[in-house]
Amino acid sequence: MDRIAEFQHIINKLLKEQNFKRSPEALYAPIDYVMSQGGKRLRPMLTLLACDIFDGNIQNALYPALAIEVFHNFTLVHDDIMDKAPMRRGLETVYKKWNSDIAILSGDTMFAMAYQFAVKTDPALIPDILDVFSKTAIEVCEGQQLDMDFEQLELVTIENYLRMITLKTAVLLGASLKIGALTAYADKKAVEEMYEFGINLGIAFQLQDDLLDVYGQEDKFGKKNGGDIVSNKKTYLYLKARELANEQQNATLKELYANSSSDAEVKIKKVTDIFNELNIKEEVSKVMSDYYAKSLHHLEKSSADPVKLSLLKSFANQLYTRSH
Amino acid sequence: MDRIAEFQHIINKLLKEQNFKRSPEALYAPIDYVMSQGGKRLRPMLTLLACDIFDGNIQNALYPALAIEVFHNFTLVHDDIMDKAPMRRGLETVYKKWNSDIAILSGDTMFAMAYQFAVKTDPALIPDILDVFSKTAIEVCEGQQLDMDFEQLELVTIENYLRMITLKTAVLLGASLKIGALTAYADKKAVEEMYEFGINLGIAFQLQDDLLDVYGQEDKFGKKNGGDIVSNKKTYLYLKARELANEQQNATLKELYANSSSDAEVKIKKVTDIFNELNIKEEVSKVMSDYYAKSLHHLEKSSADPVKLSLLKSFANQLYTRSH
Repeated sequence: MDRIAEFQHIINKLLKEQNFKRSPEALYAPIDYVMSQGGKRLRPMLTLLACDIFDGNIQNALYPALAIEVFHNFTLVHDDIMDKAPMRRGLETVYKKWNSDIAILSGDTMFAMAYQFAVKTDPALIPDILDVFSKTAIEVCEGQQLDMDFEQLELVTIENYLRMITLKTAVLLGASLKIGALTAYADKKAVEEMYEFGINLGIAFQLQDDLLDVYGQEDKFGKKNGGDIVSNKKTYLYLKARELANEQQNATLKELYANSSSDAEVKIKKVTDIFNELNIKEEVSKVMSDYYAKSLHHLEKSSADPVKLSLLKSFANQLYTRSH
Repeated sequence: MDRIAEFQHIINKLLKEQNFKRSPEALYAPIDYVMSQGGKRLRPMLTLLACDIFDGNIQNALYPALAIEVFHNFTLVHDDIMDKAPMRRGLETVYKKWNSDIAILSGDTMFAMAYQFAVKTDPALIPDILDVFSKTAIEVCEGQQLDMDFEQLELVTIENYLRMITLKTAVLLGASLKIGALTAYADKKAVEEMYEFGINLGIAFQLQDDLLDVYGQEDKFGKKNGGDIVSNKKTYLYLKARELANEQQNATLKELYANSSSDAEVKIKKVTDIFNELNIKEEVSKVMSDYYAKSLHHLEKSSADPVKLSLLKSFANQLYTRSH
C-alpha cells in the first residue's frame, strides 16, 4: 500500500471509530449521516501529508486532521441552508432531509466537536493549532458572507472574486497544511510556506471548479455542465468574459444573467458561445496554471524531505489534473 | 466601588474594547448589535468571581469570561431563529432584523470568536479550559434539541424536563464558574464543587424563570405574564400540575395546551386557576429552594476564602431573589 492509500485508510478508519450516533437522536443522526457519506477527505489528507514530509509523528496530526474534516462538513451543512442546495454528494442535504432548525443545531454541534478533536494532540501544540483553526473558521464565514453579498451585485471585480474564493475555499486548504506542518514541529518558515502552498493550490482548485462547470466531462463528474450559468453565478469565467467582452457581448451577458426564467439549454449555449469567442477557457486555464505553479514554488521552498515532498506534489497534481 | 460593581465595570470595558465592527459589514453588524445590547453579563461575572474567591489573577480569567459571554450570545442568535422569537431584550432579534442566513453565519462567526477569546490566557490553562468549553457547547446544543423534541410531545417526565434545563441552561453557569476556578489554579475538588454550585444554581434559576412567567410582577420585568402558557410551553409548573391534577383538571390542562387558537387571557386565567388549586407556586418554590440550598452547599464545600466566598453567595442571592 503506498503512502497516499495508507493515509486515506488511516483517516477513514479514524472516522469510523468515532461514535456519532449519540443521544438526542434528532441532533446526532444528521451528523452521522454527513460524516459517513465519504468524500475525498482532501483536507485531512493534506494535514497528514504535511506532517509526514517534515518527518512528524502522524499520531500528533490524526485528530487535528479529523477536526478539519468535521469543520469542513459543518460549513457545508450550514452553507446548504443558505444556498438552498437540495443535494450534495448525490444525497439529500441535511436541511432538506430534516429541516433548517436541525441543520443549524447539528452544524453547531459539529463545530464544537471539531474543536474537541483539534486539541487531541501534544498539549504544547494546542495554542498554535487553535490560532490557525479559529482564524480560518472566521475567514471561511467571511468568505461565505462575501459570496452571498456578491449575489446581490450585478458585477464584482476579479480582485474581489479572488479575495472571496481565498476566504471561502483556499484558507482551509492552507490551514490543513499549516496544521500538519505544526504537528511535525516544522520551523516557522516551513509552516508559512506550507500555508502559502495551500492558499495558491486552493485558488487553482476553485478556478478549476469554475472551469469544470462549463468545460467538464459531464458523465465523469455526474453533474450536468452549466449549473453556474443557470444560477447566474458570477464565476471567474463570467467576470473575465465581462472584462474582455465588446459592447454587444457585454450587453448579452448582462441580460442573460439578469434573467432567471429563460430556457436553461439556450442560456448555457449562448453564454458558452461568448466564452468561446473570448477564449475564456484558455484565459482562465492560464491563470489557474499560474496559481498552481506558485503553489508548487512555495512547496519547494519549505525545504521538506525531497523524497516525501514529491508525494505531496503528486497528490497536488492529482487534484490539479482531475479535469483533463 | 464594591467588588461586584468593579467586575461589572471590567467586563463592560473589555467588551467595549473589542472591535466587532469589521468587514464584511453584513457579517459583523449583527455581531456588534448583539454584543452591545447590554444584558446582565451574569456568566462572565460568575467567571471573574470564581477566579477571585480562589485568589486568582483576574487577568487570567478576563478573556475566558468574555468567551463565555460571546458563546452565550451566539446561542441566543441561533435559538431565536429556531424559536421564531421576534424580540429579545426589547429589541428585534438578529434573524428578524436581518434574516436567517445572516443570523446563522454571524452566529457561527461568534462561536469561532468565542474560541479565540477562550485561549487568551495562560497557555498552561488552555487544555482544561477548552475541555470544559467544548463539552459545555455540545451539551447546550443537546439541551436546545431536547427542548425542540419536547415541543412535539404531549407530555414529558419531570426528570426529562430537569435534564433538558440542566443541559440548556445550567451547564453554562457551571462552566462559567468552573473556568473561573481553573484560571485561579484551584484544586480539582474545588473546581468540581464550583461546577456543581453552578449546575444547581442554574436549575434554581430556570425554575424561577418558569415561576416568574406566571407569578412575576408584570411591570417590573417588562414582560406580560403567561407567555409560556400561551405558547403551550411545558414548564416545570405545567408538568407538576399534570402530575398532581385530578382527572378533570388533567383533561382541562391537556385540552387547553392542545389548542393554540383560544383566547389568550381566558386561557391564562383557566390554567392559572388550576395551578392555584394545586398549590403549584408553593410546590415549585419548594423545589427551587432545594436546588438553591444544594448550590450553596457545594459553594461552601469549595473551601474558598470565606470572606470572598460571601461575595459570590450574595451575588447568587441577588439572582435568586429577583422575583421576590
